Amino acid sequence: MPRKIIIIGAHAAGVDAASAARKKDRSAQITLITKEKKVGYSRCGLPFVLGGHIESFDDLIVFPESFYKIMKLSLLTETTVTKIDPKTKTVDIKDNLGKQQSLSYDSLIITAGATPRVPKILGLDKKGVYFVRTIEDGQKISKALKAAKSAVIIGSGLVGLEVAVACCERDLKVSVVEFLPCVLPFLLDNDMADRVQKMLEEKGITFVLAEPVEEIIGSDKVNGIRVGQRVLPADVVVVAAGVTPNVELAENAGILLGKTKAIKTNSKMQTNLPDIYAAGDCVESVNLVTGEPILSQLGTTAVRQGKVAGINAAGGKSEFIGTLGSWITQLFETEIGGSGLPAFMAEKYGVNSISATITSKTRADYFPGALPIRIKLVAEKQTGKLISAQIIGGEEVTQRINALSFAIQKEMTAQELAKAETCYAPPVSETWEPMILAAELLLRKIN
Amino acid sequence: MPRKIIIIGAHAAGVDAASAARKKDRSAQITLITKEKKVGYSRCGLPFVLGGHIESFDDLIVFPESFYKIMKLSLLTETTVTKIDPKTKTVDIKDNLGKQQSLSYDSLIITAGATPRVPKILGLDKKGVYFVRTIEDGQKISKALKAAKSAVIIGSGLVGLEVAVACCERDLKVSVVEFLPCVLPFLLDNDMADRVQKMLEEKGITFVLAEPVEEIIGSDKVNGIRVGQRVLPADVVVVAAGVTPNVELAENAGILLGKTKAIKTNSKMQTNLPDIYAAGDCVESVNLVTGEPILSQLGTTAVRQGKVAGINAAGGKSEFIGTLGSWITQLFETEIGGSGLPAFMAEKYGVNSISATITSKTRADYFPGALPIRIKLVAEKQTGKLISAQIIGGEEVTQRINALSFAIQKEMTAQELAKAETCYAPPVSETWEPMILAAELLLRKIN
Repeated sequence: MPRKIIIIGAHAAGVDAASAARKKDRSAQITLITKEKKVGYSRCGLPFVLGGHIESFDDLIVFPESFYKIMKLSLLTETTVTKIDPKTKTVDIKDNLGKQQSLSYDSLIITAGATPRVPKILGLDKKGVYFVRTIEDGQKISKALKAAKSAVIIGSGLVGLEVAVACCERDLKVSVVEFLPCVLPFLLDNDMADRVQKMLEEKGITFVLAEPVEEIIGSDKVNGIRVGQRVLPADVVVVAAGVTPNVELAENAGILLGKTKAIKTNSKMQTNLPDIYAAGDCVESVNLVTGEPILSQLGTTAVRQGKVAGINAAGGKSEFIGTLGSWITQLFETEIGGSGLPAFMAEKYGVNSISATITSKTRADYFPGALPIRIKLVAEKQTGKLISAQIIGGEEVTQRINALSFAIQKEMTAQELAKAETCYAPPVSETWEPMILAAELLLRKIN
Repeated sequence: MPRKIIIIGAHAAGVDAASAARKKDRSAQITLITKEKKVGYSRCGLPFVLGGHIESFDDLIVFPESFYKIMKLSLLTETTVTKIDPKTKTVDIKDNLGKQQSLSYDSLIITAGATPRVPKILGLDKKGVYFVRTIEDGQKISKALKAAKSAVIIGSGLVGLEVAVACCERDLKVSVVEFLPCVLPFLLDNDMADRVQKMLEEKGITFVLAEPVEEIIGSDKVNGIRVGQRVLPADVVVVAAGVTPNVELAENAGILLGKTKAIKTNSKMQTNLPDIYAAGDCVESVNLVTGEPILSQLGTTAVRQGKVAGINAAGGKSEFIGTLGSWITQLFETEIGGSGLPAFMAEKYGVNSISATITSKTRADYFPGALPIRIKLVAEKQTGKLISAQIIGGEEVTQRINALSFAIQKEMTAQELAKAETCYAPPVSETWEPMILAAELLLRKIN
């Protein structure tokens, strides 16, 4: 009898789980079940379609129908899983015509994703208020922006700022409202966040920080928001206040959640119930620096967890040991990224840390086109081990984040990084690489 | 009495040594002595001035006169050191007017550099034959190229190919002749070198490999070269056949050379003689993978060794433990780089290695402008430890080389790299970073 693997969800984690399971077990029956009509697309690309960098929302579909055929995957779209029964090892499903059936599994993988968090704000039901999660959301926002002159974005995380930039690129007057005192909260320390904010302000975006939105105003259609003493005009409001793991189905089946209220798994991505795995935005991860549970709702985390779950569900052996939450974005011409535990987070976790920040250039000073770059490194004071990298720069930030992500994963110290070897040629780098200069400064502060 | 530090040479290693010594000892008398008229410039930039990417040769001067004043460094240009006397701790010098004197030192740092290797070829003395090492060399070549229609470059190392590209960018008919069977010998494995060669051939450069140049032909002025059965036309010939460490002065003083016939030092950059240090192109380095002596005549090696020598010469403590020879270049729009020990070199050293090569894209597939990238990884078979990375790609190769250079330095295994975390956003990267995909393929070959 071929092994039956059911996967709930069909985006980053789900499709990578299916793909990994297929590679491990060529004869398994693998079925992906999703509520959505469109599947296997990149949510991370939505703001970049809104900004006109990518032509069409359909371009975001990374896995076309042919992929499922080639990989021999059954795909049930517009189908809801209504129940998981771990005793009978079945899931109950209902399609868009209301037809119900029960499917049995040998291994089940839950990649149920997450749902946009709905902040407690009056007037969220007015026309012109959007959340941004699906292609359909993106299409609605894109249409609304065509007729709009102003937009307010609620939330200044990655998605919030990416959508704000997209609106700005479409020549709208844009405001961003953030409940917390700085942009990219949880991702950057304040000093770095201030730089990002300033850069975006110079591009014309208005920020209202550290104040909750009181009310979305307008008759049936939004025309502004009230925040503190101010009213900001808004033909369109986009809410990007984070996402909440979809755990109801799992909880109802007796699957345990962790501290973060996401599904708890071990390093094999196994839940507490036999043969049930979970991966992606609906699960809890372990922070590699602190060893503490966190939510790491990133595309990279999803695909890596999905792969591990898929391999294990198909009888293989694989582990996902945790995450640094390495992230990157591009806002206008500036790349911004980070890895590990920012200094303010280290403090929260009781880690005694020390930081150093430098500014430098991306290429040899005399080579035309050299762009500014700002690097902040944070190390554990006692050991000198690197625990965070934060970078804002004009180019080549992404792979510097990867380099420092590798360094943090391999427990490199500031001492070692200050001596580490980098490569140099005038058109692409400096003899003294900015990462090394930052490590040297950090080392001087530690000693 | 202030400490007297004399530095022979005033380029990458010398100036960084002076700068580090000054930071360590604010009262030291620091004197740099060089034969050259222009000092403290970037030799690595010469081909990029020839190609028109940098406006003027003087732009390459990284350290202007004001630098020496601010740092309180005495600078003797157009001055030759004729003798080092380790017993009296003095150096004899002669300026361009023939005036001689003797200077005493407490610490001496030899950063005497290297001289272009002169291959045994008939006709090297003809007009129109150039070596490429100094700004003056660059200026002569630039002038000659203006009147030329064709150029032959002898040698296909980094400088050779960079000059070939520059000549091509100036619309000359360009041929490269290489004695060894592939381009970038010692830096790339043949399979990767073949790709570089093909790319350059597509741009119009002709290659004659695995054949020594027999003769440079022409009357008093070059008009071609004879190689094998062929005659290649050449109004200009540029010889870029590597460099030989300048060790005569050191040898005459009783300083020991290593296996590579460069100055031998310990990790403090100390020679066998008391208070005499050496750094840069004239010294031997240790390969971090094999532990064997090598020549690492790169700008990055020079500045890092110079810094260590400067700190130690000024009474501080610093170490340079060795090099991976991490390198990078840009040829037309393609970045090419490497770090560590290519597979063919591993074989020479008796290291049992295994390799994997993948091709991928630099950004999300659906993001316009994604460029191809090819990554080769080599690991020690027994341990899985990475020993080499070689990359050819359209963008962001430099920092990938740095990332893998960090990985090799921290003895990361293929297993660890296959699981390593990277960052993702559609405009700048892929969810599955090509470096990780290469590590996965390598891992499958190891297992």
